[in-house]
Amino acid sequence: MLRTHTCGELRIADINKTVTLCGWVQKTRLMGGLTFIDLRDRYGITQLMISDSVSDKEGYARECVLKVTGIVIERESKNKNLETGDIEIKLQHIEVLNTSITPPFTIEDETDGGDELRMKYRYLDLRRNVVRKNLELRHRLAIETRNYLDKQQFIEVETPVLIKSTPEGARDFVVPSRMNAGQFYALPQSPQTFKQLLMVSGFDRYYQIVKCFRDEDLRADRQPEFTQIDCEMSFIEQEDILQTFEGLTKHLFKVVKGIDIPKIPRMTYANAMKYYGNDKPDIRFEMKLVDLKATTSGKNFKVFDDAETVIAICAKGAADYTRKQLDELTEWVKRPQIGATGLVYARVNTDGTLKSSVDKFYNEDDLKNWAQVCEAQKGDLILVLAGSEDKIRKAASELRLEMGNRLGLRDKTKFSCLWVVDFPLLEWNEGDPNLLASLAGRWHAKHHPFTSPKPEDIELLKTNPGNVRANAYDLVINGVEIGGGSIRIHNKELQAQMFKILGFDTEEAQKQFGFLMNAFEYGAPPHGGIAFGFDRLCSLFGGADSIRDFIAFPKNNSGRDVMIDAPSEISLEQLNELAIKTTI
Amino acid sequence: MLRTHTCGELRIADINKTVTLCGWVQKTRLMGGLTFIDLRDRYGITQLMISDSVSDKEGYARECVLKVTGIVIERESKNKNLETGDIEIKLQHIEVLNTSITPPFTIEDETDGGDELRMKYRYLDLRRNVVRKNLELRHRLAIETRNYLDKQQFIEVETPVLIKSTPEGARDFVVPSRMNAGQFYALPQSPQTFKQLLMVSGFDRYYQIVKCFRDEDLRADRQPEFTQIDCEMSFIEQEDILQTFEGLTKHLFKVVKGIDIPKIPRMTYANAMKYYGNDKPDIRFEMKLVDLKATTSGKNFKVFDDAETVIAICAKGAADYTRKQLDELTEWVKRPQIGATGLVYARVNTDGTLKSSVDKFYNEDDLKNWAQVCEAQKGDLILVLAGSEDKIRKAASELRLEMGNRLGLRDKTKFSCLWVVDFPLLEWNEGDPNLLASLAGRWHAKHHPFTSPKPEDIELLKTNPGNVRANAYDLVINGVEIGGGSIRIHNKELQAQMFKILGFDTEEAQKQFGFLMNAFEYGAPPHGGIAFGFDRLCSLFGGADSIRDFIAFPKNNSGRDVMIDAPSEISLEQLNELAIKTTI
Repeated sequence: MLRTHTCGELRIADINKTVTLCGWVQKTRLMGGLTFIDLRDRYGITQLMISDSVSDKEGYARECVLKVTGIVIERESKNKNLETGDIEIKLQHIEVLNTSITPPFTIEDETDGGDELRMKYRYLDLRRNVVRKNLELRHRLAIETRNYLDKQQFIEVETPVLIKSTPEGARDFVVPSRMNAGQFYALPQSPQTFKQLLMVSGFDRYYQIVKCFRDEDLRADRQPEFTQIDCEMSFIEQEDILQTFEGLTKHLFKVVKGIDIPKIPRMTYANAMKYYGNDKPDIRFEMKLVDLKATTSGKNFKVFDDAETVIAICAKGAADYTRKQLDELTEWVKRPQIGATGLVYARVNTDGTLKSSVDKFYNEDDLKNWAQVCEAQKGDLILVLAGSEDKIRKAASELRLEMGNRLGLRDKTKFSCLWVVDFPLLEWNEGDPNLLASLAGRWHAKHHPFTSPKPEDIELLKTNPGNVRANAYDLVINGVEIGGGSIRIHNKELQAQMFKILGFDTEEAQKQFGFLMNAFEYGAPPHGGIAFGFDRLCSLFGGADSIRDFIAFPKNNSGRDVMIDAPSEISLEQLNELAIKTTI
Repeated sequence: MLRTHTCGELRIADINKTVTLCGWVQKTRLMGGLTFIDLRDRYGITQLMISDSVSDKEGYARECVLKVTGIVIERESKNKNLETGDIEIKLQHIEVLNTSITPPFTIEDETDGGDELRMKYRYLDLRRNVVRKNLELRHRLAIETRNYLDKQQFIEVETPVLIKSTPEGARDFVVPSRMNAGQFYALPQSPQTFKQLLMVSGFDRYYQIVKCFRDEDLRADRQPEFTQIDCEMSFIEQEDILQTFEGLTKHLFKVVKGIDIPKIPRMTYANAMKYYGNDKPDIRFEMKLVDLKATTSGKNFKVFDDAETVIAICAKGAADYTRKQLDELTEWVKRPQIGATGLVYARVNTDGTLKSSVDKFYNEDDLKNWAQVCEAQKGDLILVLAGSEDKIRKAASELRLEMGNRLGLRDKTKFSCLWVVDFPLLEWNEGDPNLLASLAGRWHAKHHPFTSPKPEDIELLKTNPGNVRANAYDLVINGVEIGGGSIRIHNKELQAQMFKILGFDTEEAQKQFGFLMNAFEYGAPPHGGIAFGFDRLCSLFGGADSIRDFIAFPKNNSGRDVMIDAPSEISLEQLNELAIKTTI
């Protein structure tokens, strides 16, 4: 080792020791003929003291790499913000291991570098304490996940990355095969079929922290490659999965954040949609959606009378919202992303009187009814949206979240977990520009094609597929879908029926999933599983909104790694060997 | 849970308990009006007893899935080979969870299925105890590796899978980008540059158990996707890497196999070639190569006199080899893979007399000299090869290993570890059909282009590149290269010099590795690392020669997954979206 200690470990007890440290120059200061250097490594910062003025030398510039030897002494003015703040090193010897040109942005918690610059020089951005801590958190979460599942007798099995293209939802990335010219591998969107095969193989409990790939047009919080905690169990029912992964969730919160999570409540998909307008409700706060249709009907207010749906939320303590604030909120709900045509409000004033934006149609008694239905109390503000069911329930959900933000009800250090259960098995897909054309305009698996319907709903498959509930469940934390899974179909006739409903003909189903359907001929056990979005879990634990800073080398919204400049052109020689050419 | 216990856990202490088990029918036997079923799951086998003859029913055929309830009773005739052999379950209730058609091969430790069939039905092959145990071993090795490195303050960081194509050695798999038409990602052959960037970022200690990809023509023990334990450390010297990963190796042997590995010896590359003809010597046995050129010269034996190199090995206790055995061995060394033109032998008989196949040229005194140089004793057999240095040293190495096999000196339950150090930095490449044409006929990095020369040899780079030794090292166990690594160049001028020697012009080096060379401008620390072949490590621990049965879903020698039938053709629609077409 070039060093005897790290920059994070020396304390008062080490005084008078001769030590050697290595690290980067964070800062150099001259004071009264002395030079002070903050030397930084992954473990911390230690102050160096030189009885001389050396600041003008190249080797002491920011981000230079030093190896220094000296004696640990007690500081005159201690720094309580630093773990090593009681001591400093009186230097006897300095060796410059490497110099540095001036970085394009400051290596500080609050940097002056913009996103683009930070991405291009990611290796410098990763030097920043805040970014490195995110990745340390990620490592801790991975280790603790593995150890928990290992103790529960799960086996981590690596499934292949070079697999076969399947028509499941989003687009596959493909890999031309040189040895099998004209043919392609695909990168897995998930190890779904392999983990089911492992259950057929009797592995009983499988997990894997695994990279998955999806060639979608990227949004801010999506990456073309992402990581899942992928799990599957045999001889279990839904309840066993919920218990096991509630255990994992509690374990992670306990050991990584020191938080005791209470028993995780459960909500049906139907109730989530009814009360939150959303299948991943943020239950850190109430403010449930209230159906105000019956209460508001027949008072000649055409907007409400004509609307399919009238939904209210009660914003606690917001009756003092000014006219200006309400106008601004009205503009907010009218934005295309929200899609409402307007916003009606009713204040429950602190003196008990009520005042609405539609007093022309509703008298104080009417408004009292509103308040009663909404459980609004003195000082509360009722906000009402009206329109078509689909649009308005979604808009009300957005408004609820927005009011949650404005009222400070979405504290990132508070965590509310929720199981959403009883998802619909199928959803009708009118055709989506993000899907291949062959998948548009038909029943589409809400979860995936191997999800089991609830046994009591199987009969409905023939008559009313849209009403069939699935043995499917999501783990939602703070309004973010962290995990999702289902009990799988282990019966080959039922699986064949599902493929038929999803519009795969027998030949297509056999071609795409034949190996799984064949495997089911040889004694498939009842099984089910779950997958957690690991990047998302890390960002949630880190109190951040974006996953990007929890990934060491992320890609931008065009799927580019701007640091290494990938993707890039390849040589004609390579293309020829692969028997492909580009058509642009 | 559908079960109360697994099929591996019931013992005498459980007698009289009512239990429910789930599993697969391994075997059904009728005996004296009773039916006995061996029920199997991942954890073991439990015998079920039914007071009836039920063997003819479909649900009790091999590999059917049962859920059974009954009472644990003591067996009359105990089975000591089974952990549950003291008890059996007297059944009260049987539920057939799933039926099975007859498997294409027997699910037994010794199966009647050939390789092709087992690969096609890999999900059934994985039911076999021996294969599953291999993957359980793999899981254990991964968990123990992670926990060891975690305790040493290594952080696991996931590096990207979609990266940029580089001209390093073998071929890259590439991935066409839809969003960046005409451009391609590449799959990583190793995370080499990323782990070096992480050191520049100050991560200090990195590891990752990571999939890597190499589009090579496959040999029996190669896979297009393989797994590495990839590590890198900062502020260290070669000695620190050797110590740290000697620690990991000892830890794995201790906790996974209960074996105490002594201090791992070290050998220079030069000595490995001299004494073993091989840079990964199997030191479970001696039988070193002996230079017999001087000893045999000038006796008018033209074959030896004309040969560049004359090498002997001494096979202990093999003097009783018959003429027939020696003729057969002579044929063996003449095979094209070995490439010798013939084999000379000299027996040291148990009575002390000597007898050779070249008595016409060498008298008993001459042969005594041979015996002395070879340290041959009574009862030993000296085998001599002669020819050109390159060919004969390799042939002698092969002969040594073959004799080791024949004499039973290569026990798979014995493990001899070795560090091979001081590798040459460069090797001259005459052109290799496995490499891209642009890489042929020039200096090639023996390890990789970022490997540091030994400081004392740097001057030789200008005058005699072939003699420069690298700070590079391999961990060899039982003649298998398990790990390899090096101290890296952290100085940008030295790196530029290396690229120049390797034939990258400045522009090309900047295009391919610019981001790494740029990163080195900002204070790169001294660093180095190592990567272990994880598949190979697992097969070594499992006492096997092939890695294939330590990979859940391996590919065959044509890079095909015959179970899922990948690679395969993709739709014209997919090709169009990716802006490529095939040219076959």
